[in-house]
Parts: sequence; C-alpha cells; structure tokens
Amino acid sequence: MSTLANSVRLTGDVVEILDRRVYPFERRWVRCATSEDVAVAIERMVTQSSGPLFATTAGLVLAAREARHEPPGVAADRLRAAGARFVVTRPTNNHIRDAVRAILAATIDGPLAQASGAELAEAVEAAAAEHDAAYRARSASLGRHAAGLLPDGARVLTHCWADAYLIATVEAAQEAGKRLEFVCTETRPYLQGARLTAATLVEMGYRPTLITDGMVAAVLADKLADVALVAADRVTLDGHVVNKVGTLGVALAAQRFRVPFYAMVQAPDPLAPTAADVVIEHRDGDEVLHVLGTRTAADGVTGHYPAFDTTPPDLVTRIITESGVYRPEHVKEAV
Amino acid sequence: MSTLANSVRLTGDVVEILDRRVYPFERRWVRCATSEDVAVAIERMVTQSSGPLFATTAGLVLAAREARHEPPGVAADRLRAAGARFVVTRPTNNHIRDAVRAILAATIDGPLAQASGAELAEAVEAAAAEHDAAYRARSASLGRHAAGLLPDGARVLTHCWADAYLIATVEAAQEAGKRLEFVCTETRPYLQGARLTAATLVEMGYRPTLITDGMVAAVLADKLADVALVAADRVTLDGHVVNKVGTLGVALAAQRFRVPFYAMVQAPDPLAPTAADVVIEHRDGDEVLHVLGTRTAADGVTGHYPAFDTTPPDLVTRIITESGVYRPEHVKEAV
Repeated sequence: MSTLANSVRLTGDVVEILDRRVYPFERRWVRCATSEDVAVAIERMVTQSSGPLFATTAGLVLAAREARHEPPGVAADRLRAAGARFVVTRPTNNHIRDAVRAILAATIDGPLAQASGAELAEAVEAAAAEHDAAYRARSASLGRHAAGLLPDGARVLTHCWADAYLIATVEAAQEAGKRLEFVCTETRPYLQGARLTAATLVEMGYRPTLITDGMVAAVLADKLADVALVAADRVTLDGHVVNKVGTLGVALAAQRFRVPFYAMVQAPDPLAPTAADVVIEHRDGDEVLHVLGTRTAADGVTGHYPAFDTTPPDLVTRIITESGVYRPEHVKEAV
Repeated sequence: MSTLANSVRLTGDVVEILDRRVYPFERRWVRCATSEDVAVAIERMVTQSSGPLFATTAGLVLAAREARHEPPGVAADRLRAAGARFVVTRPTNNHIRDAVRAILAATIDGPLAQASGAELAEAVEAAAAEHDAAYRARSASLGRHAAGLLPDGARVLTHCWADAYLIATVEAAQEAGKRLEFVCTETRPYLQGARLTAATLVEMGYRPTLITDGMVAAVLADKLADVALVAADRVTLDGHVVNKVGTLGVALAAQRFRVPFYAMVQAPDPLAPTAADVVIEHRDGDEVLHVLGTRTAADGVTGHYPAFDTTPPDLVTRIITESGVYRPEHVKEAV
C-alpha cells in the first residue's frame, strides 16, 4: 500500500494529516484537534489532491463529536457550519463540496434532521466511512479504465500528483501485466511531482524520470513519452479540464506533438456546465518566490500564483471516469 | 549600469567571473588564474547567457599571456588549443565559437601567424577588447529594434535571462519614453528568471511579476501579457529558434492565445542551415533534482536535463537581430 493512499487518520478525537509539504523528506503528521484545525490544514496545503476529501470527511466526524452533547437543532447547526467552513477552504476541486453534501444528505439534510448530538456523531462517522469507501471504489474503477487505455510498455508523462487515480491506474496496469514507465514534472511551486508522484512511484517499484515544468514540450518533441496522463480537479459538462496549473501547457504540447492527452476524474461536475462555473483559486504569490521555504527569487518581485488552469476540450483526447472513457464532448453522459 | 552587464573582469593576470549560480543572493566572484579555470567555470555555469562570450575573450587573453614567453609557433599552438578548449565547454550557443574564431582570425589565423608570444599577448588583448565592444554595440542596435516592436505600456513575458539583449531593449525603451511591464518565468533548474532577470529588472527600476515555468499558458490565456520576448542561443538560417528549455512551451502558448512571440539574436548562424546542425546540450540530470543546492526530488528518480529546446519557425512571429526585424523565413537575409 502506498503511504499517500492513507495519509489522513482519525485517532481518538484527533485528525492526523500527513504533511505533504515536506513528504517524503520528512514524515510529519499534523495533529488537528478541532474541525477548524482541519480546515486550516487544508488551506495551508498540509494535504492536497485526494487528501482534502479524506480530511473533510474526518473533519466532519470531529465537528459532529464536538457537538455530541448538544440538543438536536444546535448539533445540526454546528455540523452545517463546519461543512460550510470546509467548502470555502479551497474552491476549485469539488471533492470537498461533494463530501459535505453527501454527509449532510445522509444525516441532517435527510433522515436525521431531528437527531441528537450523540446520534449525529455516530451517523456522521458512518456516512464519512461510506463516502471514503465509495471514493476509493470509484477510483479503483477509474484506474481500470485508465490502465485499459495504456499500451503495454507505455511511457507516461504525468503532471503534479494524481493521487488515488494514479495509484489505482498503476495497480490496475500491474494486475493486467502491463509495464509502464513514467516521466514526472516537478510541479512548482510545491513540487508535488518531484516529491509525491516520484516517491509514490518509487514505492510502487518504478524508476521515474524527473523533468522541470518547462521541459514538457521538449520531451514530447523528442518523443520521450507516448501519452500524457493527468488528474482533473474538476471537469465541466462541456469537457473543460481544470487541473493544477501547467496542465494547459502539457495539453498544448501534447496536441502539437500528437501525443494523446488523457484527464482522469471520477465524474464531471453536474453543477459546472462550463469553465465559467469553476472558481480558479489564486494562492499567495509569495509561494512562487520560495522553494521548500527557501527564498529563490530576487527582492523586489511580486509572485503570481494561479493554482489551476483550464484546458479546453479541443486539446483533450479522452476523459477517463469511474464509468468509462469519454471524448470531452460526450463527458456529460458520465454524470 | 546593470551589475550583470559587467560580470567578467580581467584584473592583472586573473579573470574574475561573477557567480551567476548564486547571484543576487551572494555577490561572489570566481577567480580564474588560468584559461583552463575559465573553461571549467563556463562548464559549471558560473556564468551563462552573454557571460561565456566575455569569459572566452578574457580567457583567450589569459591563454596568450600564459604563452607570452614562448616562441612564435608554440605561442600560436597554445592559443589555438585554448580556443578549442573553450569551444567544447558548451555547444549550443555560438558565441564562444564565434569569439574564438574572431580572435584567432585577427591574430594567428591572420596577420600574426608568425608573431612572438609577447606580440601575440598584446594583439589578443586588443582583439578581445574589440570583440567585446562590437558585441555590446550590436546588442545595443538589437535592443533598439526590439524596443521599436514593443508598444508603449506593453506587458512583456520573458523566459530565462536574455542578458545584454534584454538590458539593451529596456534601455532603448526607456530612451524612447516607453513604459514596459514584465512577467518573468523562474526558469528551473537554475532559476535564471527568478534571480538574474528579476534582479536586473529591479535594478533598472521595474517591479517584475514572477511565475513558475508551468504558468506560462495560464498567464497568456488570462491575457496578462501582450508579447513574449526571449533571447535565442542560436537561430538557424531557416528560422528555428534554439533557446533555454521551456521556450518551445512559451511559443506554443503564445500561438494558441494569439500573443506575438519574438526571439532576439544578433544574427542567425551561417553555419547552421537548419535545426539538425545545432547540438542541444544535455546537462547532468542531477541538476534537475536540486534547487540552489538543496535536494528537492524524492530518492530513486533520475533527472533529465535537455538545457535547450528548438522552436520551429511556424511558432515564431519575428526574429529581432542587430540589423533589423525579420520573419523567420527571411532571417537568413540578416547573416
């Protein structure tokens, strides 16, 4: 099992989150004693990719426990407030929003509208476990579809860290006896590719090749990869792929050099008909001026940090979902 | 005057080179007591961009002085060997080759074929000074042509460090009363954009915006720059632009989002009819696994470092030379 596949854990009344800002150089777990601590950890990038989903479900369990001695109306309000807090931590990926909705739908927005704090705490824990398990099952399904698209021996260019989707893809490829090779971008400013993707692939038995983000076009021009494979933080109903900034550049290079560009998402977002419906998070520009906490830019500059970009459907070869593989113009069928 | 405009100096019998690997965080000068020391400094990236040209001319002066007590044939052989040594330090930019040829043509391959070591030392010093001055004059001319292409108020996206060409462009724009703004890529792995371009623009009175290399397409999609302006290490007679890796991605994004892509070079290389005639330097992949000496990649990965890429002419809007501005298909007229 990959370390990052289980990087959020609920221990007693504490949520512990593996600090992805320093992994694999340090294995530091951030202790979150309250649901607010969990929200702050998500904002500060202690975890990312699939991590905020698990942090959110665990954080809601914590929030429900915090209200376990409250009467019905108060406990429900506290849970709803915690959910709203998680939703505003990071706006671009819909995992957090969907996790909150699912857990509220199974509890206070559903059969447990009048439950006591104690009943709610128990029910939220069950709903959280169910949501986590469903996410893992859907990722496994997605991974089988992704592996099915990759020819034996494929050299796969990845960007950033596709987390559960990539792990599931690799596991499915291994089960199918397919050999794969990987080229990873380092993915500045947080270096998710150099650290998280690279460390996990090494853990799974591969020897990935690492490039800087500016080398993607050169690598594809030199025919050093056969396919570009990325996750998507959000896919719109009309086939726009929103993912870690840099993905658009990968797609442009893939189109130019006739390499298929595949994006993985469990399903398109039914609440996002098109790209205008997705909020692109802009993070603190100072994050661009540093690497792992060390200043790398001259004084007097201003950093600019759009955390995601939007790849239009004409640059996307296929979107791989839990229910199958779609051309971007048909992806709404996967809702 | 910008610090980097004078970053190689000959002091007594020592060539001192400002260490661009650490500038502007440290102002460390690397002392080269022999012409071989200078060659090693170029290989190790103590200087880059326009720097190796000045290091080569100064290094040839040193080589000639090392042979000042030698008889005619021996002194000439020593000088020729030093020139050959410089040419193999870094193969992609033709500045070094051209500097060696010019200085040899003015001395042992020309009127001073039979000169004594002492005569040669004096003549090489004069030829080196002349070559440096001519390079500066041609850069100034190029800068005026570049500034002429930029509208007042233009937001200029740069990649890597265009050195003398960028300084000359900014100076010419300032003389013409044109306001400019800059967006710089950080340019991993050496961070020339974050350090050299950024520090020099700050020195010249600007407040550049810094982005990571993966953000270029997002920035152009968001219409945050009006023009992409890069140097070229080499331009072929058929209009291919060879420059720091990442340039090809800039050009692809510029084409997609209808932003003009301009490349600056004093002249195309008459010895390079097409891209196949240019050697692309591949540097040690370990350089990709570190930032400013600190390990940034997980164990078990292999770095891949093509130091340059090649942008084909259909992606190039104009090539700016010392003699004027050309469409890539006509750049051979600028030889």
